[in-house]
Amino acid sequence: LNEIQNIVLIGAGNVATHLGLAIQKTGRSILQVYSRTKASAMQLANLLNTEFTCDPEAINREADLFILSVTDDAIREIVGKLNLGQKMVVHTSGSISMDVLWKCSENFGILYPLQTFSKSRSVDFNSVPLCVEANSKDNLHLLEHFAKELSRKVVEVDSEKRKILHLAAVFACNFPNFMYNVADQILADKGLNFELLRPLILETAMKVQELKPDEAQTGPASRGDKMILQKHDELLREYPDYREIYKKLSEAIRKLKSKWEIYE
Amino acid sequence: LNEIQNIVLIGAGNVATHLGLAIQKTGRSILQVYSRTKASAMQLANLLNTEFTCDPEAINREADLFILSVTDDAIREIVGKLNLGQKMVVHTSGSISMDVLWKCSENFGILYPLQTFSKSRSVDFNSVPLCVEANSKDNLHLLEHFAKELSRKVVEVDSEKRKILHLAAVFACNFPNFMYNVADQILADKGLNFELLRPLILETAMKVQELKPDEAQTGPASRGDKMILQKHDELLREYPDYREIYKKLSEAIRKLKSKWEIYE
Repeated sequence: LNEIQNIVLIGAGNVATHLGLAIQKTGRSILQVYSRTKASAMQLANLLNTEFTCDPEAINREADLFILSVTDDAIREIVGKLNLGQKMVVHTSGSISMDVLWKCSENFGILYPLQTFSKSRSVDFNSVPLCVEANSKDNLHLLEHFAKELSRKVVEVDSEKRKILHLAAVFACNFPNFMYNVADQILADKGLNFELLRPLILETAMKVQELKPDEAQTGPASRGDKMILQKHDELLREYPDYREIYKKLSEAIRKLKSKWEIYE
Repeated sequence: LNEIQNIVLIGAGNVATHLGLAIQKTGRSILQVYSRTKASAMQLANLLNTEFTCDPEAINREADLFILSVTDDAIREIVGKLNLGQKMVVHTSGSISMDVLWKCSENFGILYPLQTFSKSRSVDFNSVPLCVEANSKDNLHLLEHFAKELSRKVVEVDSEKRKILHLAAVFACNFPNFMYNVADQILADKGLNFELLRPLILETAMKVQELKPDEAQTGPASRGDKMILQKHDELLREYPDYREIYKKLSEAIRKLKSKWEIYE
């Protein structure tokens, strides 16, 4: 069982960037960065003080691990072009099955970080849940060992469950952020500043770091306050889409709430 | 212009509790806690090391400020019973007009803390936005001065705008927490642990502490990834309500996104 020491990053987006930085911190080497886009490849290679290429043919085959960290479409495209023989290859996508990787190598797996990354924010990679999967026991051990150097939250998750996690992540991240957008828009239209909501947003997320979300649920729908639901419905007249969303979500909260009450 | 030194808390819920604690920290006195429910009144009075009553007639009239921190319905009920003459009275509700208070005093206003409070979590009150309003310039000054001792984020907000803030807070707090509930449920049904999503939830809220939510929006709907939207739609077959919510929210995200693109 060989250790993973030298890595090639295929992709130069947010995930590749944060992974690359975290890998270097463990003392391992990023041999090369590949991206179709020269500017991106160059930028990340500079940040990591390594080489880059935009030519799939020029990808350095000496690495112990190739990390595909590109869009889902690009994964499907690149696996056809990349023959890595027996070299270990993983992708970092939440929604693509592991099996697409058999086209490029005999040894493959998944390294899926369950976090939202932005170039402008540093992330404590050590607390990012890393979901791993591999096509053999040996490869799983190899990958787990590598992942545990990056994060203290490594979990084995098969492709089916990974897709569920990815779906849940849309509800945990993308939809809450959309809700922040709606709030921002409603405030802006009345000359109010989004800044006023920031402590509330943070505390709402902090609460469920300890509590389960059902214990943390508050608000007019949760306590069945029909007067406020009615007032909010009127206030949302100018926003037919958000009015409908408010109604649907309030109904769903009522249903959840009565379900909890039955079990209580 | 007299300073506010002695306060009576009318109500003993989460808001009254955190307000009471914050007020005591500034060196002011909570003379008394009133609540209809003896257990609640006693519990908060104990915490604040003060007196309590459950009899509206026995409310101590010597205070400089009476804070009504009860449910919206209870506000309407108690203002009819409470004649405070010229004593300053405020309520802490996001959705009730200031004018309901004229029934109990000539001097009245609002002290609305824009935060979600739970008994089990301590809150840095100093960073809680406090929205103030009053029925006269003098009362506004008095209240602002008092509020600024409690928080460094005091803003004057009229009743109409306060209702908008309260509506926006539902989108910023109650609906995101509902989304966490959906995620929790989907994971639990597949034997996956909500714990895995906690870092993502926190980072999503952290991002908009700096960025505007439109800059932070990510996910399949935001980038128009039809393949994933389709897959998630299939995964949600067992959850017809959440499937519909997923669809509605994804459509709304697409609309927002194309609106931003037009302005870019």
